[in-house]
Amino acid sequence: MIQIAIMGLGTVGTGVAKVVAENAKQIEHKLGEPLQVKTILVRHFKDGPYRQLMTDDFKKIEEDDDIRVVVETIGGVEAAYEYTKRALMAGKHVVTANKQLVAEHGCELLALAKKKNVNYLFEASVGGGIPILHPLTQCMAANRIDEVYGILNGTTNYILTRMVRTGAFFSDALREAQAKGYAEADPTADVEGIDAGRKICILADLAFGHQVDPASVPMEGITKLSLRDVKIAQRAGYRIKLLGRAVRLPGGGRTAYVAPHLIPEENPISNVEDVFNAVVVRGNATGEVMFYGKGAGEMPTASACVADVMECLQASPKREEIGWSADTNGFEDPMELHTRYYFRIEGSLTDAALAFGQVEVLSEDGETAFLTDRISGQDAQQQSKCLNVLACMRVLA
Amino acid sequence: MIQIAIMGLGTVGTGVAKVVAENAKQIEHKLGEPLQVKTILVRHFKDGPYRQLMTDDFKKIEEDDDIRVVVETIGGVEAAYEYTKRALMAGKHVVTANKQLVAEHGCELLALAKKKNVNYLFEASVGGGIPILHPLTQCMAANRIDEVYGILNGTTNYILTRMVRTGAFFSDALREAQAKGYAEADPTADVEGIDAGRKICILADLAFGHQVDPASVPMEGITKLSLRDVKIAQRAGYRIKLLGRAVRLPGGGRTAYVAPHLIPEENPISNVEDVFNAVVVRGNATGEVMFYGKGAGEMPTASACVADVMECLQASPKREEIGWSADTNGFEDPMELHTRYYFRIEGSLTDAALAFGQVEVLSEDGETAFLTDRISGQDAQQQSKCLNVLACMRVLA
Repeated sequence: MIQIAIMGLGTVGTGVAKVVAENAKQIEHKLGEPLQVKTILVRHFKDGPYRQLMTDDFKKIEEDDDIRVVVETIGGVEAAYEYTKRALMAGKHVVTANKQLVAEHGCELLALAKKKNVNYLFEASVGGGIPILHPLTQCMAANRIDEVYGILNGTTNYILTRMVRTGAFFSDALREAQAKGYAEADPTADVEGIDAGRKICILADLAFGHQVDPASVPMEGITKLSLRDVKIAQRAGYRIKLLGRAVRLPGGGRTAYVAPHLIPEENPISNVEDVFNAVVVRGNATGEVMFYGKGAGEMPTASACVADVMECLQASPKREEIGWSADTNGFEDPMELHTRYYFRIEGSLTDAALAFGQVEVLSEDGETAFLTDRISGQDAQQQSKCLNVLACMRVLA
Repeated sequence: MIQIAIMGLGTVGTGVAKVVAENAKQIEHKLGEPLQVKTILVRHFKDGPYRQLMTDDFKKIEEDDDIRVVVETIGGVEAAYEYTKRALMAGKHVVTANKQLVAEHGCELLALAKKKNVNYLFEASVGGGIPILHPLTQCMAANRIDEVYGILNGTTNYILTRMVRTGAFFSDALREAQAKGYAEADPTADVEGIDAGRKICILADLAFGHQVDPASVPMEGITKLSLRDVKIAQRAGYRIKLLGRAVRLPGGGRTAYVAPHLIPEENPISNVEDVFNAVVVRGNATGEVMFYGKGAGEMPTASACVADVMECLQASPKREEIGWSADTNGFEDPMELHTRYYFRIEGSLTDAALAFGQVEVLSEDGETAFLTDRISGQDAQQQSKCLNVLACMRVLA
């Protein structure tokens, strides 16, 4: 009998308890012995099926030598950070879905795990139940990873899908997402790109092996996106999607950011709709591979946590060798990146051509929408200075 | 310095040597020491960059204690089977891309590897460079896997794509694929579904934990596919794709087969075009996740082999706990599976209705094309007995 603890009994924490119970047979078959949730840390006791397992005292977990793995689903930083450190210090493996904690303190927590010869695993923190981090670090280990990009937030993708399909305005699509339970009452972290930003930081950390400080990653959401651009893009054979993107730059540096992009409809990621997520990883040997599925939800995310628990137990006494350098050097502003740019301006094609030379016109009715050649962000900014810019986005090419 | 051997210097074997050289820096960083190809087993010596590493004597590998991992890229069964057994017996890890060997003897070779406390890994055998087997067995370990299906053969998918896009006949599309190097001079294993069949066997073995004997898996290719069905399907909002499919049956049994299917165009796998592969795994907690990329090619497949080499070395002294029971009980004929069926008959809607009751008509011009309700394969066969059937395919729903 292997015993674990769960910290926090929200959606994911409850899901972990459910997966352990519902898939007990599969789990026992793979581990060779049954897996049991012994203790659940909560702030407030609640009645329900797990009442007898609850404690509000972290020491009951910290000091219990029977508990070999702790699943942290508290979320946020403060308590989660404190308890994760103490659990690792106590020689317990820790598994989490907490993207904020991993993005901000993952490097340090992995180093602590290494020192204590235990695992700190967080597959569920990116893409929920879609396997991404293990495939990236293990299956693609023989590659130099040159780029990772993806639709990392289901809420915003649902909103964008509604805008494209039904011509809904952003505010109406957001209300619809809230009514369906896909968006929080306070949707800021989703629609402002912060959630996707934390995830692209974790992907960049693992892909490039250097800490990416979330504070240095520009995060642009979809709140300023106009239905007009959605329509122009669609007519020209593009879809607009909110992408998190991390790129190895030609000079050896690295960058990462979150922003809406125009994506050619031949790219399979342009067809990723509703609350689905997809992550594309480009390796120098493998080329592009895509991982696709529902990126959130109680059971998918929980099952990824439980798989990590099993991984800790199977790998023991060896550790999963993941981790990255705390050195943030080499991180460059995404303005360094050369891409095609989409502009919609109040002005004519002549204005556009005066600023950018030859452009590809997408729409010309009072306003002008066009695509530039591949240029840096600085050049895009500089050359558009004298234009009245209504919208500006990168093109994924 | 960690030393490995390669057996066979065809496309994948050469790729392995290239990946080890080209990505030496990434590999050394992850392993903590450099990786080097010491010996390459060939049948005939050839001049070239690897001339000095070549031997035609397997004992040079078998008896060399410096060689910790052997990459088998001979292909086929006979010599590959013999040398794999002997390498495992000699206490060496073995890594392969050889789907035929794994499908036919994987269960036995994994048991031998377990006995000798080494790994037998074969991520590259399905989907080339696309991570599939590790995500299935590791990241989705907390799921009961209910179904795996996929476009497992790039050659046939290229041919089908040409038929859909340009209205080419099968024979012309095949010639085009051969001219582009996507199809072999003898394309039998691809176009008759045998290659996809071996891969779905491996996926079923790992997903369900029981040996699936390739000889018991019905494999239907695309040679009998008519352009007429391609067009009818397309007009009705479906794409025709060759799928390998393994399903857990409601009664607890399992089945697997390869056949062309009609796929609704909303399903992302219907958009997988050209030589791309995609595998969908449905877990009871995670739901459907899809893995997508180029399923073949020298560098992608080779990089998957090298990642497995690294996995062997990092996991050591622990083994990857994969494997399945040799017990084939519970494997049932795919005729047991209930699906909708597509029929094209020489006859009228009345004939169709007399045979199947209510049907969904797709086309009615002399011939009649229609979809049935969900029925078993036996019922499909039985009820269509009195019809003049020109085409019959399952619908993926």
